[in-house]
Amino acid sequence: MGKTNTEEIIELLKTRVSKDQKNKLEVLAKKSFLDYLASVTLADKELAVEKLKQSLHYTDQYLIIGQKGNLSVEQAALLNGFTAHYLDFDDVQANFRGHPSVVIFSALLAVSNPTDKLRSLLQAFVQGVELAGHIGRTIHPGHALQGWHSTGTIGTIAAAAAIGVYKKLPEDKLATLLSFAASQASGMMFQEGSDAKPMQAGLAARNAVAAYKLTESGLTATKDPFNNHNGWLKTISGTEITPSTWGNSWLSPAQIENPGIWFKQKPFCSAAISGYDATRQAYEAGIRISNTTQFIFHYPENGDRALTKSHPLTGQEGKFSIEYIAWCVLENGDISTEDLDNFRVSPKFETDLPKFSRQHDLPSKDKRARPVRLEVIQDDKTANFTVINPKGSPLNPLDETDLQKKLVNGLGDLASDVIQLISKSKTQLKEIDSLLNYRRYLDCTSKNSQISLAPLS
Amino acid sequence: MGKTNTEEIIELLKTRVSKDQKNKLEVLAKKSFLDYLASVTLADKELAVEKLKQSLHYTDQYLIIGQKGNLSVEQAALLNGFTAHYLDFDDVQANFRGHPSVVIFSALLAVSNPTDKLRSLLQAFVQGVELAGHIGRTIHPGHALQGWHSTGTIGTIAAAAAIGVYKKLPEDKLATLLSFAASQASGMMFQEGSDAKPMQAGLAARNAVAAYKLTESGLTATKDPFNNHNGWLKTISGTEITPSTWGNSWLSPAQIENPGIWFKQKPFCSAAISGYDATRQAYEAGIRISNTTQFIFHYPENGDRALTKSHPLTGQEGKFSIEYIAWCVLENGDISTEDLDNFRVSPKFETDLPKFSRQHDLPSKDKRARPVRLEVIQDDKTANFTVINPKGSPLNPLDETDLQKKLVNGLGDLASDVIQLISKSKTQLKEIDSLLNYRRYLDCTSKNSQISLAPLS
Repeated sequence: MGKTNTEEIIELLKTRVSKDQKNKLEVLAKKSFLDYLASVTLADKELAVEKLKQSLHYTDQYLIIGQKGNLSVEQAALLNGFTAHYLDFDDVQANFRGHPSVVIFSALLAVSNPTDKLRSLLQAFVQGVELAGHIGRTIHPGHALQGWHSTGTIGTIAAAAAIGVYKKLPEDKLATLLSFAASQASGMMFQEGSDAKPMQAGLAARNAVAAYKLTESGLTATKDPFNNHNGWLKTISGTEITPSTWGNSWLSPAQIENPGIWFKQKPFCSAAISGYDATRQAYEAGIRISNTTQFIFHYPENGDRALTKSHPLTGQEGKFSIEYIAWCVLENGDISTEDLDNFRVSPKFETDLPKFSRQHDLPSKDKRARPVRLEVIQDDKTANFTVINPKGSPLNPLDETDLQKKLVNGLGDLASDVIQLISKSKTQLKEIDSLLNYRRYLDCTSKNSQISLAPLS
Repeated sequence: MGKTNTEEIIELLKTRVSKDQKNKLEVLAKKSFLDYLASVTLADKELAVEKLKQSLHYTDQYLIIGQKGNLSVEQAALLNGFTAHYLDFDDVQANFRGHPSVVIFSALLAVSNPTDKLRSLLQAFVQGVELAGHIGRTIHPGHALQGWHSTGTIGTIAAAAAIGVYKKLPEDKLATLLSFAASQASGMMFQEGSDAKPMQAGLAARNAVAAYKLTESGLTATKDPFNNHNGWLKTISGTEITPSTWGNSWLSPAQIENPGIWFKQKPFCSAAISGYDATRQAYEAGIRISNTTQFIFHYPENGDRALTKSHPLTGQEGKFSIEYIAWCVLENGDISTEDLDNFRVSPKFETDLPKFSRQHDLPSKDKRARPVRLEVIQDDKTANFTVINPKGSPLNPLDETDLQKKLVNGLGDLASDVIQLISKSKTQLKEIDSLLNYRRYLDCTSKNSQISLAPLS
């Protein structure tokens, strides 16, 4: 009898790679971890994060490393996942069409031990992204077009797979873990623009951790959750899979290399970055909202699918609106964090909104590209600003220095110590946790809010 | 502007009924509550339940009423939902195609207060079942045929709606609650025959409670999760809905009256009950496995869809196998709890299995009916045993005495006190909890396992 789909996936997850390749992928994963810490620490003073902490009975005490405080591990994963995704400032992978770090690192940290090596975490992350990328490539764009939010759906599976790799589970336990994850995988696109969107990242991390706890309890689950008869992928997207064909490109190149990971300089939907860059070019060329009659954003078919808010009512909804993001740039030269908060958008934006429109007439390109052409029509002339690979995308990446700056914004003086720890090959998680707890301690004594990265379990 | 789908659903959930009707529906809901307590208490010594308790760090201490022990409310809902569904002994509703009590009562108990009236719980249950029935009627059979497990998917929404009614949430909070529930609603048919199947009931209850906690935290979610563009029903089943049309039959008759609720006398899938009854008739007529060459079960198209295991390997899988259930009856006269546990089926069953087959040639009937014809072929003759309304189904119901017997099996001497409390109109939850805690205390002192009904929060 041949292998089941799930057995084939598990074999892929257990792929051994050469030391050289492992080192190369770890370097890439470190960028994601750096960006993850930046995303968490930049968001941890947001009102919504505070609300969630209170509902989880999170106390303001200084937490000793290795203690869980009064959060369950599921709650720790939920809190970190929500916080890391709250500003929509975290990384993105094109085949997955979702946010890998927030679900995978949040799940891994929740089940980690203080003496675990950071590099084990990074290696597990690589495999989690790999699975997410292969599943995404197989079921998108249909899955997203149907209304599912990949970070919640595929993200739950990917985070569970990463836990399985991290914990070096035997094959039958890994199948059970993936099966319990498939029972919980969910997430809806309609949540864009509300707190429930980042919460879906938190829920995915929670669900992966819950799947791990259930597996460890000894309870059973169906062993082939990816079968082509009524398996998870078949049920949720009507797709049959042949994981054996994934093997040809499993980690060669890795999904983390190609299409690679996007990092963000601004906290809004990655689908808006090209349009933002194009609008910034236009602004540099002297174009303003006041001296222009029409702004037409040209996209490929479905290229703006994630930008669901043409007429956002709040800055938080504005994260998914190229019209709003462009308007902020054209009005003020750039967009600020305050422009993207949960308060009502400026009435002037609503007055100017009729100047904006979208068309879908660009050819589709490489998945790594995010082409847009901004056509600007003034009384006597037309100008075009085209961006194919926006800043932060895999072919126009943020370099490590950019990411380090992001972490400095989030962590202040402590960032350099954390950066140094991340760069070392033998760093234990408790060393990073120790620094973050120190920050929490400083924040505590200065009566500020706290960093929300969960303590190690 | 017209009402959104979600606003219409909320209006339905807030329907006020006459006192007479309310009383009549409460009587029906009481049967479900009685059956729920029986299902929980009958399962609470199962090994799988013990495993789950340990993974939740559930201690064996005697718990004071009104305390949560060391379970979060989400974990309490998970534990009760899993336990109540573990034996597959709990009630079923045909339009929902799922198990209402295990998800709804488990969620409600987890968020209840000791001084709340039992009748508030029952009224909220009625509304939860109502929504489940209307959604199910709209999206089935496609939803189930696609591979979704209604108890997990629709069940999460129904349990959240019941919490909203129970807590008398204002409309905007109720919309948020349903929205957070829709973000988490999941559950896969492929889990039949494993612990993950009852766990999906636990997860649905957990998710509804989590949605309530998130709503109470003040976090926002999209206000129209049931919109026809990319709402939950559209995404998960491709279906557009018009809840205004549900209003014509909202609570008149109630889903709890017609198609009504099924209660089980035996702990296996409800789709097998007709076949079981027919096989019992055959047995009474002298038919045995040894004196017969062929047993053909005739069903309507998809009438045996839930009976996914033609060749079960364990008794737990056998809960979803008419072949196995019939074989137990034909071999031993009836089926016992031990026949349905998680150990390997008898080798003799596997030898006899070729005698069984299924055909799909009966006409479809009323949803309340579960027609089957068992054709028995012996050397010289053929006999037929037809069952349309098996025992326990709405048109051939278990009466209250039967349900009381079930509770006596679960609770022993304490059952009569609990039954008396349930019959009173002003009973507070703490009175029932007090009795169940007393049982727990007795169990504790006798070193047995404990009742798993969650303490009130």
